[in-house]
Amino acid sequence: MRTPEEFISLSQSALLAVRSEAPLVQCITNSVVVNFTANVLLALGASPAMVDIPEEAEPFARVASGLLLNLGTPTAEHRQAMLRAVAGASSAGTPWVIDPVAIGSLPVRTELAMRLRELKPDVIRGNASEIIALAGNGPGGRGVDAAHGVEAALPAATELAAGDSVVAISGPIDLIVGGQYRVRIANGTDLLTKVTGGGCALGAVIAAFAATSEDQLSTTVAAVTVYTVAAEIAAERAAGPGSFALAFLDELSALRPEDLSERARIQVERVTR
Amino acid sequence: MRTPEEFISLSQSALLAVRSEAPLVQCITNSVVVNFTANVLLALGASPAMVDIPEEAEPFARVASGLLLNLGTPTAEHRQAMLRAVAGASSAGTPWVIDPVAIGSLPVRTELAMRLRELKPDVIRGNASEIIALAGNGPGGRGVDAAHGVEAALPAATELAAGDSVVAISGPIDLIVGGQYRVRIANGTDLLTKVTGGGCALGAVIAAFAATSEDQLSTTVAAVTVYTVAAEIAAERAAGPGSFALAFLDELSALRPEDLSERARIQVERVTR
Amino acid sequence: MRTPEEFISLSQSALLAVRSEAPLVQCITNSVVVNFTANVLLALGASPAMVDIPEEAEPFARVASGLLLNLGTPTAEHRQAMLRAVAGASSAGTPWVIDPVAIGSLPVRTELAMRLRELKPDVIRGNASEIIALAGNGPGGRGVDAAHGVEAALPAATELAAGDSVVAISGPIDLIVGGQYRVRIANGTDLLTKVTGGGCALGAVIAAFAATSEDQLSTTVAAVTVYTVAAEIAAERAAGPGSFALAFLDELSALRPEDLSERARIQVERVTR
Repeated sequence: MRTPEEFISLSQSALLAVRSEAPLVQCITNSVVVNFTANVLLALGASPAMVDIPEEAEPFARVASGLLLNLGTPTAEHRQAMLRAVAGASSAGTPWVIDPVAIGSLPVRTELAMRLRELKPDVIRGNASEIIALAGNGPGGRGVDAAHGVEAALPAATELAAGDSVVAISGPIDLIVGGQYRVRIANGTDLLTKVTGGGCALGAVIAAFAATSEDQLSTTVAAVTVYTVAAEIAAERAAGPGSFALAFLDELSALRPEDLSERARIQVERVTR
Repeated sequence: MRTPEEFISLSQSALLAVRSEAPLVQCITNSVVVNFTANVLLALGASPAMVDIPEEAEPFARVASGLLLNLGTPTAEHRQAMLRAVAGASSAGTPWVIDPVAIGSLPVRTELAMRLRELKPDVIRGNASEIIALAGNGPGGRGVDAAHGVEAALPAATELAAGDSVVAISGPIDLIVGGQYRVRIANGTDLLTKVTGGGCALGAVIAAFAATSEDQLSTTVAAVTVYTVAAEIAAERAAGPGSFALAFLDELSALRPEDLSERARIQVERVTR
Repeated sequence: MRTPEEFISLSQSALLAVRSEAPLVQCITNSVVVNFTANVLLALGASPAMVDIPEEAEPFARVASGLLLNLGTPTAEHRQAMLRAVAGASSAGTPWVIDPVAIGSLPVRTELAMRLRELKPDVIRGNASEIIALAGNGPGGRGVDAAHGVEAALPAATELAAGDSVVAISGPIDLIVGGQYRVRIANGTDLLTKVTGGGCALGAVIAAFAATSEDQLSTTVAAVTVYTVAAEIAAERAAGPGSFALAFLDELSALRPEDLSERARIQVERVTR
């Protein structure tokens, strides 16, 4: 069984790999967070590319290092672009991530998310209500706010993970489900919920890390650990959400591997099926 | 007749109500300010939801606490979404706000604003030139910049307010016209005009406050007072527009009710018709 | 032959002219950087106007002081709006700038850029790979990252400049080609590449400066000098990309003409043809 220490060590190497390889991360994401998402990727050392029109999404997904599909403001052009990008990503082996923002009661994004789910994303990231809704088990949350606690989404995540996806649920303690593992990460700060894109940008970071290895459980754990540890450090010198967002970008850029070993609070559970 | 002290007291309770109720504010707003608008709402304690595609805008407006329509970059999808959202809001009693950005000479947004005006928004927010143009009395301003002083728009605001809307005109001294009242608020800072969205985000804040009471004159006064007092405090420790935007978000989050009683400069005029 | 001192002196007057004239800069730009671009223009003293729908783009371009077309996320509506805006700008003599973001292998934007090129933009701004691709000499870069050094694009820039455009290539040492001149500016900071829009916003600044004189070589040199000197000063007090972006906006607002004379590192070369 893999230990927390192993996941921390893999997180450290993944952070260094992102910085040295500068993975090209294609994002088809919502208009609210697109700027913050690009800045988060740049601060980490990745290379963002918001190639999001239908005619260009597929060829670009073939050459991108990773792909994020975020359903926050799914315009007609974005919906087409997402399906074409998945075709490109699948044919080229580009890892791809979906973030089913606010699905459940909103019809267009819910239908799209269900269709994308069938196409077997490498990673699914959302809050508890979104994961429950994606598994077809509930009506979703209230806008981007989860109406459920993270652990309430464990059955839904387990069901989704059975389709070979890794599932990452954001909350006070993040839960990542993949294969036989359930990994819980107790880092972060409530300030991440006070900056728009605090959750959405994590989806892009997961796509960046996914480019560094084929072991998507480890890369997802690495992405969440790096993201939440950087946020935690940034929160210590923030006076509010404005100064937090600034400090978070600075910290993503300055984060040292030893910050992860000193701060990461990872718990690993293995389930025999 | 209501006094400045009463409006300040109502502003204090409205601020606390926004923080405790976290109203869900649907925004169909322009691409330039959508991120800042969401961050302003989050900093205040409200919950932003940029649900802005036609097929989702109407059902969401039925469950939202408030709705903002901002005409800054009115794509075809946004124009449809706005009309459907108003249908949803009207049927469910969701208060809604329009911000007729840069109307006057630009044809598409001007026609849309005139149509929205007929649908009786609860609150109209704009600069003087936009309010004059919406009343059909003039050609509008220069882009988002007002070509008129605030008081020059008083006749137009009075005309628009006769249709049961509250009208809020932004400027060095903000003017709010509703029913028999004209309320002037002399807080704020010129730095609000040096950060994009300084005016537009106020429209969303008005929608958030509108959710806390049916007295839209008071909630609009509260929104403008909270917004401009926070801006004023933030400006005191800003070295320029970049540090101002950061401090403003921090201050919206930290603002205390006593800041309003200590700083709000409100003048109330009642007109016998 | 014009000297570096003359270009610095012209840059100083152009900075003051932007601040006193507040040129109205129409931007049809990508969703990632639209907010930052508007904030950069406001910090400088210009007036941004993101009028980017087809039906409004042409009339607005007739009255705008300058126009930027940025191809970063070229939606169908933006593509139409760009062509109409050029028609308006050309008929009214409004100077216009294109930024052919990430052209080369991406089909839609490449075709659009080639068409815009034929319409004779006043200024073309890009990285080396984009300039090479626009001249038809190569496949472009990797997303927004240049795959070529600045000087490798000199033949392509010279070819494009022969069509009466000024060409500005961003890199560690910026190169501006116009008429018989090649001007190199050795200011700036690598942090500009760590904030999304660090390059794109420069295109808007060039459009703002273009409004102050008909000598587009001088106004482009002025824009690049002001932009990179402000960035250089900001970088000196930044701890990372987040604090850099804030300091950059503050510095654009606070920059003094003497900062240009003290810091600008301009080299001028004249080519006899």
